[in-house]
Amino acid sequence: MKYLKITFLIIIIFFGFSWSALAQKDYKLWLQYDKIANAETRTKYLADCNGIVSFGSSETITIAAKELQLGLSNMLGNTISVNTKVIDSNTLIIGSQSSLNPEIQKAIAAELNKINEEGYIIKTILLNNKNHIVISGKKDVGVLYGVYSFLRLIQTDKSIKDLNIVDSPKTNIRILNHWDNLNRTVERGYAGFSLWNWQKLPDFIDQRYIDYARANASIGINGTVLTNVNANASILTPQYLEKVEALANVFRPYGIKVYLTARFSAPIEIGGLKTADPKDRNVINWWNAKAKEIYARIPDFGGFLVKANSEGQPGPQNYGRNHVDGANMLADAVAPFGGIIMWRAFVYSEHDANDRAKQAYAEFQPYDGKFKDNVIVQVKNGAIDFQPREPFHPLFGATPKTPLMMEFQITQEYLGFSTHLVFLPKLFQEVLEEDTFQKGKGSTVAKVVDGSLYKNKITGIAGVSNIGNDLNWTGHPFAQANWYGFGRLAWDPYLKAETIADEWLRCTFSNDQNFIEPVKKMMLESREAVVNYMTPLGLHHIMDTGHHYGPGPWVSDLSRPEWNPVYYHKADANGIGFDRSKKGTDAVSQYAPEVAKIFDNLETCPEKYLLWFHHVSWNYKLKDGHTLWDGMALKYQEGVDQVKNMQEIWNKTSKYVDQERFHEVQMLLNIQYKEAKWWRDACLLYFQQYSHKELPASVEKPSQSLEYFKSLKFPFAPGN
Amino acid sequence: MKYLKITFLIIIIFFGFSWSALAQKDYKLWLQYDKIANAETRTKYLADCNGIVSFGSSETITIAAKELQLGLSNMLGNTISVNTKVIDSNTLIIGSQSSLNPEIQKAIAAELNKINEEGYIIKTILLNNKNHIVISGKKDVGVLYGVYSFLRLIQTDKSIKDLNIVDSPKTNIRILNHWDNLNRTVERGYAGFSLWNWQKLPDFIDQRYIDYARANASIGINGTVLTNVNANASILTPQYLEKVEALANVFRPYGIKVYLTARFSAPIEIGGLKTADPKDRNVINWWNAKAKEIYARIPDFGGFLVKANSEGQPGPQNYGRNHVDGANMLADAVAPFGGIIMWRAFVYSEHDANDRAKQAYAEFQPYDGKFKDNVIVQVKNGAIDFQPREPFHPLFGATPKTPLMMEFQITQEYLGFSTHLVFLPKLFQEVLEEDTFQKGKGSTVAKVVDGSLYKNKITGIAGVSNIGNDLNWTGHPFAQANWYGFGRLAWDPYLKAETIADEWLRCTFSNDQNFIEPVKKMMLESREAVVNYMTPLGLHHIMDTGHHYGPGPWVSDLSRPEWNPVYYHKADANGIGFDRSKKGTDAVSQYAPEVAKIFDNLETCPEKYLLWFHHVSWNYKLKDGHTLWDGMALKYQEGVDQVKNMQEIWNKTSKYVDQERFHEVQMLLNIQYKEAKWWRDACLLYFQQYSHKELPASVEKPSQSLEYFKSLKFPFAPGN
Repeated sequence: MKYLKITFLIIIIFFGFSWSALAQKDYKLWLQYDKIANAETRTKYLADCNGIVSFGSSETITIAAKELQLGLSNMLGNTISVNTKVIDSNTLIIGSQSSLNPEIQKAIAAELNKINEEGYIIKTILLNNKNHIVISGKKDVGVLYGVYSFLRLIQTDKSIKDLNIVDSPKTNIRILNHWDNLNRTVERGYAGFSLWNWQKLPDFIDQRYIDYARANASIGINGTVLTNVNANASILTPQYLEKVEALANVFRPYGIKVYLTARFSAPIEIGGLKTADPKDRNVINWWNAKAKEIYARIPDFGGFLVKANSEGQPGPQNYGRNHVDGANMLADAVAPFGGIIMWRAFVYSEHDANDRAKQAYAEFQPYDGKFKDNVIVQVKNGAIDFQPREPFHPLFGATPKTPLMMEFQITQEYLGFSTHLVFLPKLFQEVLEEDTFQKGKGSTVAKVVDGSLYKNKITGIAGVSNIGNDLNWTGHPFAQANWYGFGRLAWDPYLKAETIADEWLRCTFSNDQNFIEPVKKMMLESREAVVNYMTPLGLHHIMDTGHHYGPGPWVSDLSRPEWNPVYYHKADANGIGFDRSKKGTDAVSQYAPEVAKIFDNLETCPEKYLLWFHHVSWNYKLKDGHTLWDGMALKYQEGVDQVKNMQEIWNKTSKYVDQERFHEVQMLLNIQYKEAKWWRDACLLYFQQYSHKELPASVEKPSQSLEYFKSLKFPFAPGN
Repeated sequence: MKYLKITFLIIIIFFGFSWSALAQKDYKLWLQYDKIANAETRTKYLADCNGIVSFGSSETITIAAKELQLGLSNMLGNTISVNTKVIDSNTLIIGSQSSLNPEIQKAIAAELNKINEEGYIIKTILLNNKNHIVISGKKDVGVLYGVYSFLRLIQTDKSIKDLNIVDSPKTNIRILNHWDNLNRTVERGYAGFSLWNWQKLPDFIDQRYIDYARANASIGINGTVLTNVNANASILTPQYLEKVEALANVFRPYGIKVYLTARFSAPIEIGGLKTADPKDRNVINWWNAKAKEIYARIPDFGGFLVKANSEGQPGPQNYGRNHVDGANMLADAVAPFGGIIMWRAFVYSEHDANDRAKQAYAEFQPYDGKFKDNVIVQVKNGAIDFQPREPFHPLFGATPKTPLMMEFQITQEYLGFSTHLVFLPKLFQEVLEEDTFQKGKGSTVAKVVDGSLYKNKITGIAGVSNIGNDLNWTGHPFAQANWYGFGRLAWDPYLKAETIADEWLRCTFSNDQNFIEPVKKMMLESREAVVNYMTPLGLHHIMDTGHHYGPGPWVSDLSRPEWNPVYYHKADANGIGFDRSKKGTDAVSQYAPEVAKIFDNLETCPEKYLLWFHHVSWNYKLKDGHTLWDGMALKYQEGVDQVKNMQEIWNKTSKYVDQERFHEVQMLLNIQYKEAKWWRDACLLYFQQYSHKELPASVEKPSQSLEYFKSLKFPFAPGN
């Protein structure tokens, strides 16, 4: 109590008067554009930024020019003018290829040949023996991407001398999946509620829609699915399509296409039909007409994302049809307008006694080659469900004739909601770098996703959004890095998490090396920390059920077996883990033989996946010599210690960071530390019932009894 | 379509680059503290603000000093220093009575004698022949109020020479009622979702909690009920009380007490008892222990607000007891700790065939004098439910021995949600100025509420909050004025709406007279506009049911008769209106004879209440000579025209207002205009079925059929 009051006093003194800052820093994401403190640096940059000339008059070009002006003027502390013609020297020339005059076109022709339709080039050229910087692309949106890339050079303290940057996105569809409901609740949302204020649309355009589009464009995201995969058909009624159209109009100049989720039973619910059978002529006609209606409003509508016959959602199987029938029927409806169907492979059934981890592959792999050209199958990174760590999904690489889209989860459903600092690009990178061996060595997941392995025409990466209407967008200041990192990886799946962390920290906080180095280290270790204090050594899905908040390894009373944590850890007197080896469910055989062999063998299976693939004796000796029980307990302790270390690092950063964000992160790390200990204590006490072993000496004693942890209930946990 | 696209282009061009402004203006409410543009004015103020000296070291005094420094430094463009002792001249001296040195105390002794415990004085005094300004009060919170009052002088361009301001709040309890649920939905909330992020509490203190407290303190609000009157008992569990405690700790230094709603059945739901009978010893003990538990955490906990036996809420009647039994039992539980019970009189029953408007009076008036000293009965301004206009509630003045608290609704449940600009202080003032005649002429509602009529010890005004987590707090920039105005009227129920509008506009936007005059006029007319286009001439409760969004005079199929609009308007071939005269339900007789007589007589009844009290022939001649039908139609048209006029006024203000707020209000007025026409058309088409009369020539023809209006459905309307 006493301690708490002192804490509050401190908080109030630090916080009480930041009204003038106003959560503004938090709101501005990675586009802070703070004035560069060092005058010499400003002067150096200013020398190359004598003015802006923009060619073209589209909204996109207008936005690009204004963004460039805003960013440069703020960072360099001088208003940079926008002019109508190229001045003497050091002009920033922006415009798409065809809008530039022949002399400039010629100077960048070689580079333009190397980029795709969304790519950009930034090149220092000579005109009349004077240097100028050209930012161009084949289309206006490339120019916009180029402008953000150029601004990032300055934001991250890089040189802008003798530039020759040639860059194109490696995937076609770089898309956020909003699991936003029409009542503005967000499934698995931990940053407040949906940005989409349907009641005030279409007539009220919230500033946030524009700021959202701008933030996305700055990292190359070019699509957004506005609605939850657990879909409501009402979004397809004229009343809502008018609102969707208004959002599409806002997003369009930022290069962002709008997509919707299609509820498979919509023809019944809003169409008045008796069936939604994809082979029924009336159903086909209804979807064709609906597509036509949508495209009349939104000519560049992206298409539909569909969750069908999964977790209670309706689908083609309700009519004795299969996923191919369903997807192709919708694909035909949108094909005339250039639309696509993203069909989710996240399926598992209570009627299927098979290992849940095997079901999606078992169902979808045989469909390879059967989908229409404008269908892409969306596959979660792992075979279960967005766990802190999973082996890559066996479908990756297993469908040479069917493009697969990666589905990452940016929102932290199973990773501590928006109170835990977990830098997800580390997880994303790990998955993308995995070698599927499906077309020999080097067949990485990244190559499946960017289409280079099988030369797919459509490629994409989806991220389940962590964005809500919290002032800081994502609930945790560092969760902004996960939105940022997702976008950057969707653009280039070969980027390193470290590069992303470095960029983001510089754009968001400071270029001071004394800040960057420790905090980057903290970010890069944060993902391993959460794995350690939640689900070390391949454990998975032992979160409390429903909301997935906190530990619940004891839960065993849910109606569907695969909804119970006990299904996943299978702890007993002998040991712990899910035997997916050939002797078990044989899930390993869904991988290429080279991979299957490694996973199948207890000795070669990477320890990070040990309990994912094997039921292992409590006395099994880990590579470091500890028994499994001791090693597991030490991992839990290590996770807690890592969070403590994160706190120590952060506590030293106050002079580099505004007070508001400094204290926000500090408070959140306090919660994370508390909850890491909760995870450790609850899981070890629970598993100890089976191992009957003492905790190693270096593991802290639990602060409460197992009964206490089991008694905790969170009926109003968010996102459920 | 074409038009729409051009609109969007304009919006994007205007809006796209306000990131640097960042909804910041919207967020800062009436505490903008913009730098005064006129240098002469700044110099003039600076001459009297040579520095700040604060006496006392409480958090409240620290906050007051920093606020004064922040406000003055920003507005005057010079950093005003905070010093430890009085300097040569023109110091701003702040501190509560006992903390000041004797010489200063003496100089303000006479004024301090005139104020109450929360009052303040601002006085220019002489010390060693030099002028200084003292801001003081009996307690620290008075100093804080005085600081905001002083800052408001400068915000509103007033002189600070020779000050001698003596001011005290006229009511004890100036309180917001948040109808916020634990899942963060807000019943009748149209500004996003609840500010209270229960999941992150108690460890994460959102900056908004502090900014909320600050905004409230600045207008004298000293209490907040955190939870919905349709209550959930979970808030009384230790898990939540810990979170409530954290909020109380934040609010305390701002002079704000925390209150909760008590679900009457909590002893069963969370206490494990079999009954919640207020005469049961175990129940009494349970509440006593619960109160003790709460006060151990929150020593200044305010008490409970209770909705019992109303609209399905449990209450003492479930056990054959009455409201007095229930209220007094809770009153005894909190009395030892200085707590109070606010017991709502908003009751009506489906088992009571009486006119709903009569039921609260019929039930509560006989209890006069039976409640414990620490109970105050909370009464809505009118006898039905927060309509655009209602006669004052007959309970006001009718309970000489029982203090009554006014309940106003700041959130616009029946007044267009957060898309309609309606300045509510005009409504509040109208009610407060009504003469109840209960203790002879001059027995105004304000005198009941401030306790002066019957010398009540406890007095108060409650406002159902319109605050949510929207960036601008209230959904509509002008809805901030209703929060502001509520606070100012709670402090002084005799303030004029015009004064409040003037203050708010100056603090929020500009002191430019060319802006103030037309916009103030617009605000002051806005309430009459909404009455005209929704419910003219005493019509009421004809909104669509459930969500109360838009017109629904045709609704007649709900299970409880008094939930149906047809119950209220009673339109038929003869006429329209609810006969509450002596020949009808005799609701008029619940008023003092002087008032009853006026309302009872069709000729003397104010036309604004005509259809509230009388069923009137379509051919009845109104005072202006029109028939009732024509007059009603003209009122609907007038409401629409008034909104159009508001648009015209606002459209001329762009040079006085930042672009973001200018466009927000512009878009919202467009919606209001559209919806005013919807109201007019739908209601007139519907009533025309009964009147069988043509619309007057000056009334615009409806744009759609009645069937169209009846077909409109809003399943996801907010706040429901």
